[in-house]
Amino acid sequence: MPTVTLSLGKDSYDVHVMNGALDRLGDLVHRSRLTGHAAIVTDTTVVRHYGERARLALEEAGYTTSLHVVDAGEQSKSLATVETLASELVKAGVDRSGFIVALGGGVVGDLAGFTASIHYRGIPFVQVPTTIMAQVDSSVGGKTAVNIPAGKNLVGSFHQPRLVVVDPLTLTTLPARVIREGMAEMVKHAAIRDAAMLYDIRALAEETELGFTLSTIERLPDLIARNIAIKARVVEEDEKETKDVRAFLNFGHTLGHGIEAAVPYGELLHGEVVSLGMRAALFLSEKYAGLSAHASEDVLSTLKALELPLVLPEGIDPATALEKTLTDKKFQAGMIRFVLLGALGQPTISDDITIDDLKEALALLQRPA
Amino acid sequence: MPTVTLSLGKDSYDVHVMNGALDRLGDLVHRSRLTGHAAIVTDTTVVRHYGERARLALEEAGYTTSLHVVDAGEQSKSLATVETLASELVKAGVDRSGFIVALGGGVVGDLAGFTASIHYRGIPFVQVPTTIMAQVDSSVGGKTAVNIPAGKNLVGSFHQPRLVVVDPLTLTTLPARVIREGMAEMVKHAAIRDAAMLYDIRALAEETELGFTLSTIERLPDLIARNIAIKARVVEEDEKETKDVRAFLNFGHTLGHGIEAAVPYGELLHGEVVSLGMRAALFLSEKYAGLSAHASEDVLSTLKALELPLVLPEGIDPATALEKTLTDKKFQAGMIRFVLLGALGQPTISDDITIDDLKEALALLQRPA
Repeated sequence: MPTVTLSLGKDSYDVHVMNGALDRLGDLVHRSRLTGHAAIVTDTTVVRHYGERARLALEEAGYTTSLHVVDAGEQSKSLATVETLASELVKAGVDRSGFIVALGGGVVGDLAGFTASIHYRGIPFVQVPTTIMAQVDSSVGGKTAVNIPAGKNLVGSFHQPRLVVVDPLTLTTLPARVIREGMAEMVKHAAIRDAAMLYDIRALAEETELGFTLSTIERLPDLIARNIAIKARVVEEDEKETKDVRAFLNFGHTLGHGIEAAVPYGELLHGEVVSLGMRAALFLSEKYAGLSAHASEDVLSTLKALELPLVLPEGIDPATALEKTLTDKKFQAGMIRFVLLGALGQPTISDDITIDDLKEALALLQRPA
Repeated sequence: MPTVTLSLGKDSYDVHVMNGALDRLGDLVHRSRLTGHAAIVTDTTVVRHYGERARLALEEAGYTTSLHVVDAGEQSKSLATVETLASELVKAGVDRSGFIVALGGGVVGDLAGFTASIHYRGIPFVQVPTTIMAQVDSSVGGKTAVNIPAGKNLVGSFHQPRLVVVDPLTLTTLPARVIREGMAEMVKHAAIRDAAMLYDIRALAEETELGFTLSTIERLPDLIARNIAIKARVVEEDEKETKDVRAFLNFGHTLGHGIEAAVPYGELLHGEVVSLGMRAALFLSEKYAGLSAHASEDVLSTLKALELPLVLPEGIDPATALEKTLTDKKFQAGMIRFVLLGALGQPTISDDITIDDLKEALALLQRPA
């Protein structure tokens, strides 16, 4: 099976990608030398599909388990849920000798990972991501966070998982829209590190219109592993985002986060605002970083093939999106740091972007692509 | 001024101890190369005495500041307070470029340190402890935590401060009882690492009966620094409590925590339960580790000189204290690990203590010392 290793010194770990990996979870966890009680954290949606299978796989490998189910959705990424969850873990006997298994999408991964990082001042955790977004992006790299009233992801930690187990077959129970928004992060990886992957993503996009075919499913593990490898190399270079390298992963995210904050919750998915943010970032890359119109079009056509939005929905005020962008955490000490592409695969960080540039980019998003 | 350095690789830092250090806070922070906005976190009691002085000292050194005041008392060590505090910090403009100054006792240090460890996934913080307990113990070593309904200090982090500034003059505004309970941790340090210090603590105890004299105040910085050095060497050996060394600091704390949990909140201070716990631990040390009765008496007489309790208060049920001890986090996987003394300055970890031993020790605490 494809395995990607993150080399982070004593925090190194493997990411295993294989169709059917979920049923081998216990073995894989055992091989990573985790001992003690396995507390599975999942949500009300995922538990119905995969809760018992994960539990069974762990118990067959000799682990005692408990199942901790939070409400599906972003509202569970809160300190109140962390408190409830940590108290449940204590009652289930999870002390420093136990570990957490995060089974679900990005919300579950962030919440369970953060809880693991502070429970008894830090216990190990395993990521078992069940959405494309989580499989190719959020489950790898050790960033965890929850939301506070002042904003999203404002409290969190760097806490690397001990192991990541990716089973692409878990994607088959997802709605098509969630598949497509997850693939926006694949497009981002292609744009900053692997332009050739745009072709493979477009090919997959055509197939997924009809639901997963056998051929799609067969190709998924390699494609997902390729994305994880891109993220892994970036994280290895800049684990705690102290250099510019990890910031490259924010391509399309700066205005994307601003738009996300300006839109009523749930109207646009994360990958959808990243799609909008990438269109804006491509425009600014052509203007300031010398990106060719042809390269820009190559990315845009992939987003189109995935039916991802490139135009702001009716009723979204660009002024609000701008204001939210300017208060976002990515703006340190009032300075706008923006990820641009000089060419496909060649991201740079620019300090040249002005507020007028952002306004112009947001205006562009009101026009058809 | 006495300075103790903790050598922890890239997380190394200095602890400065000096009468009047509070007014030099800005300079000291500046010398530690901290930049950006200084968010002072303190409580409703400490702010009245030292809030403005700390603020002024920082502003004179060129820092912008904000003051964040939580309710005095243990109930502020909660995730709800963390959420409020983090949101306030965001409003005050504290992003990754700012830092926190924890001004107060153990509660403020734990709360502010934990918040610093997760705000924007971790920002620097400075400890300015204003109680003996915090000055000789909790402000040094990087353990932070808050309470959850399931128990005390069950979520937290290892997050070393960037700098610790100790001004013994801040102790002059404390009630005598709070001075004395803080000195229980000095007795603990003496017991596990520096028996000769028992003499100095007894000498100080006699003086503090009458309030602080000039002579007391002059000797405090050296005595406090000596305690910090003991803790520093232990933390350097075992920063994250993965070996047995850091556990030595739990001498007197195992049954102490159990008693603390069995007593109505506020009836006994932390140092007071540690005093009880040390009496029990001395008894078990004589029984199992060969500690001489003479050595035991040397520690007990120091606790007596400090008027610290050696007998369980009326109405405290030893059975409840036992039950709370057995559910305490120090018991990993059901095994009782207990810190005993073979001799003064020679702690060991024992796995031999049975539940009957704990019962016997708790029964002892019902009899006069």
